[in-house]
Amino acid sequence: MKEFDTICGIATPIGEGGISIIRISGSKSLEIIGNVFKGINNVDIKDMKSYTMRYGWICELDSKNVIDEVIISYMKGPKSFTAEDVIEVNCHGGVVSTNKVLEEVIKAGCRIAEPGEFTKRAFLNGRIDLPQAEAVIDIIRAKTDLSMKAALMQSSGYLSREINKLREYMLNTLALIEYSIDFTEDDEEVDESIPIKILDQLNKAISEMNILIKSADEGRIIRDGLNLAIIGKPNVGKSSLLNALLKEKRAIVTDIPGTTRDVIEEFINLDGIPVKVIDTAGIRETEDVVEKIGVERSKEKIDEADLIILVIDSSRKLDKEDEEIIDYIKDKKYIVLLNKVDLDTKVKDEELVGLSDVIRISAKSGYGINDLKKKIKDMFFSGEVDTESLIISNNRHKQALYRALENCNIAREKVKLNEYLDLISIYVTSAMKALGEITGAELEEDLVNKIFSEFCVGK
Amino acid sequence: MKEFDTICGIATPIGEGGISIIRISGSKSLEIIGNVFKGINNVDIKDMKSYTMRYGWICELDSKNVIDEVIISYMKGPKSFTAEDVIEVNCHGGVVSTNKVLEEVIKAGCRIAEPGEFTKRAFLNGRIDLPQAEAVIDIIRAKTDLSMKAALMQSSGYLSREINKLREYMLNTLALIEYSIDFTEDDEEVDESIPIKILDQLNKAISEMNILIKSADEGRIIRDGLNLAIIGKPNVGKSSLLNALLKEKRAIVTDIPGTTRDVIEEFINLDGIPVKVIDTAGIRETEDVVEKIGVERSKEKIDEADLIILVIDSSRKLDKEDEEIIDYIKDKKYIVLLNKVDLDTKVKDEELVGLSDVIRISAKSGYGINDLKKKIKDMFFSGEVDTESLIISNNRHKQALYRALENCNIAREKVKLNEYLDLISIYVTSAMKALGEITGAELEEDLVNKIFSEFCVGK
Repeated sequence: MKEFDTICGIATPIGEGGISIIRISGSKSLEIIGNVFKGINNVDIKDMKSYTMRYGWICELDSKNVIDEVIISYMKGPKSFTAEDVIEVNCHGGVVSTNKVLEEVIKAGCRIAEPGEFTKRAFLNGRIDLPQAEAVIDIIRAKTDLSMKAALMQSSGYLSREINKLREYMLNTLALIEYSIDFTEDDEEVDESIPIKILDQLNKAISEMNILIKSADEGRIIRDGLNLAIIGKPNVGKSSLLNALLKEKRAIVTDIPGTTRDVIEEFINLDGIPVKVIDTAGIRETEDVVEKIGVERSKEKIDEADLIILVIDSSRKLDKEDEEIIDYIKDKKYIVLLNKVDLDTKVKDEELVGLSDVIRISAKSGYGINDLKKKIKDMFFSGEVDTESLIISNNRHKQALYRALENCNIAREKVKLNEYLDLISIYVTSAMKALGEITGAELEEDLVNKIFSEFCVGK
Repeated sequence: MKEFDTICGIATPIGEGGISIIRISGSKSLEIIGNVFKGINNVDIKDMKSYTMRYGWICELDSKNVIDEVIISYMKGPKSFTAEDVIEVNCHGGVVSTNKVLEEVIKAGCRIAEPGEFTKRAFLNGRIDLPQAEAVIDIIRAKTDLSMKAALMQSSGYLSREINKLREYMLNTLALIEYSIDFTEDDEEVDESIPIKILDQLNKAISEMNILIKSADEGRIIRDGLNLAIIGKPNVGKSSLLNALLKEKRAIVTDIPGTTRDVIEEFINLDGIPVKVIDTAGIRETEDVVEKIGVERSKEKIDEADLIILVIDSSRKLDKEDEEIIDYIKDKKYIVLLNKVDLDTKVKDEELVGLSDVIRISAKSGYGINDLKKKIKDMFFSGEVDTESLIISNNRHKQALYRALENCNIAREKVKLNEYLDLISIYVTSAMKALGEITGAELEEDLVNKIFSEFCVGK
């Protein structure tokens, strides 16, 4: 295990709560906390046993004044989150108390941790591989039970085992090539079964890669949510539609405040699929605000969405603006909702010719909402949505898999064309390298740093 | 100790963080967690020792599917926060994972805790008294180091000891009265030293109560913050002033979101004093928004503030609007800031005659800002601001002390007038009852419930 300095950070979300946790990791954890912790029965902190807790107080380093009443817990490495000696200080929740405790721990000798640094250490110390580390942050950011499940599956190391299996095929292929080249150099006769064996390995790898990549689009949606833009003219029922979708039990997942206060992403939970509603003014305008939404404005929303839901008021005639939008979305993934079908219909069927997906609903009564949900799922998921099978949800993994697949395909072609095996080995090596980037077996330090920098502080 | 059902709640703030804690309290804590926790080495959970931890997983009660990787810690009562058996489940931070774990714990047999219920149990089980319980929430909500210190002092039981001392005086007085009445009944001669002894006890109590009450205004500000309204016409430099105040190191305490997303209280830390800026539109309007602020609008702000800071642009002549506001604030606590003194002054000294507190500043350069801060402190605090001496910061305590003081004063008068001692005992008993309300020794159940209902969930 590498030797790092001892770091600390607030591991709980910032805000008013019952408890906050300051996490300390590194070989000097016990020693450092000993400088500022006063236990209730003055037993030497260095005798503290792993997986036990002590009650006491954090005191100012200089004045010894009590800062907060705490319970500290100790997890001796390698049986800890980072695989290093970890101390967790449970102090009173609240912004000031938590920061005061953190401040004293820093004065006592810790460095403040960078975002993701605890998880990064778990990775660098070999306790978890890269997909497991990435799953940690996916678990934290999970929007629905399904995304949580997918992240948990990844955190269990399932993906890495799968990728290592693929790497095995590459290694076998390289071994076969090596073996055959050795023969050639000795001017002996080449074993004719070698290319067939190589093809077999490559075929197996390619087939499994294809299955994994096929899961990636579903996986991305399960992880990050489906970008849904609800568009339409004022008063067609966009807010009512949103309310109808939200009305379901536990429909609102949560509001996750972004890095700035202004950016708020809203998620609806559509039978386990997180749906991110593109929340710009207009989509959410109240029904009584009469505001002309220009077609240009709608086009912007359309371009950034995975799926467009165009709401049309069937009780009013289509006008030029509707037609222009319909024309614009024809090449995208869209669903047209004919709303207010409980009223007299003024929109004629022939006006909707050429639109593939038209659903008649009444957002007010709820009629047709289930059809809409089913349609959304059918558009993005083949068959039942579940995560019992392994899925790729991370774009980085998908990109690396693509590169591995491309190289395998080229290698396979070249084997079929009977090209030199040492030329083929270049492609197989590249494929193996790409797979290694997923598990972290082969990864540049910069990229590692980049991955962890996207974590939240204290993790 | 009373027997309650077993409750659970999320003890950390909700949001994305490294760790969340689900807290469980009650006699069935171990048994319930045993239903959904699977330890790494299958040792029976019932053998778990107090102040130890175990690594493992929370699994769904029915399907046994893994929900999250956790560490559970156990604090056997009475050595725990609630004085009951407490289990804390440290799970991955994040909204979905935390809620999933909570859900399973509920399914396994817990009731979800009401706001403040954990602390309420600590009180009902006799581990802490009422001011200590109230201090818990003050620590969480503390805005500055000073307010944190004041809350910590209260949490240590200092206030209760002081109040019990006062109750002693009352008890002594009642004993003296009792003794003297017994004598009278027996037709023996009354001990003439009795009234003197009673007066002595009452005088001591009254004097100490006065000291405590005197601290209450400072205490309230240290705890809740000083309500500061910065008023003035557009373009006089209100935003620049706010920025100048904020520029100090660690000036921004934090934004505490209220119960609704819309209410945000902003605090500045003025050398330890939390200053709550009354944040209505107008105070914060950007300098380039030319908006006529009516005098009426300012008056509203003035009425809800502890201190008004009227900013006047000294480079422009005073107009009727300025004069009207000046006239209105004359009876309030105010400071007039003549801003932009680096420019040519158009405001004449004689125009400011009758205003007691005028400070010349340049918000842009920072000139005069320290004078302003000193002035604010001088207006609200006598001498150095510190919390080394005991302060009353809670309005409930102050009200009860007032009632105790009033009753003591009446009792003292009646003793001096040689009134019947059993009449006097009524007032002394009332005073004692009022003091008992502070420590919780005498308090209606409804009031107890009300106090704890203001806590946050999970505490």
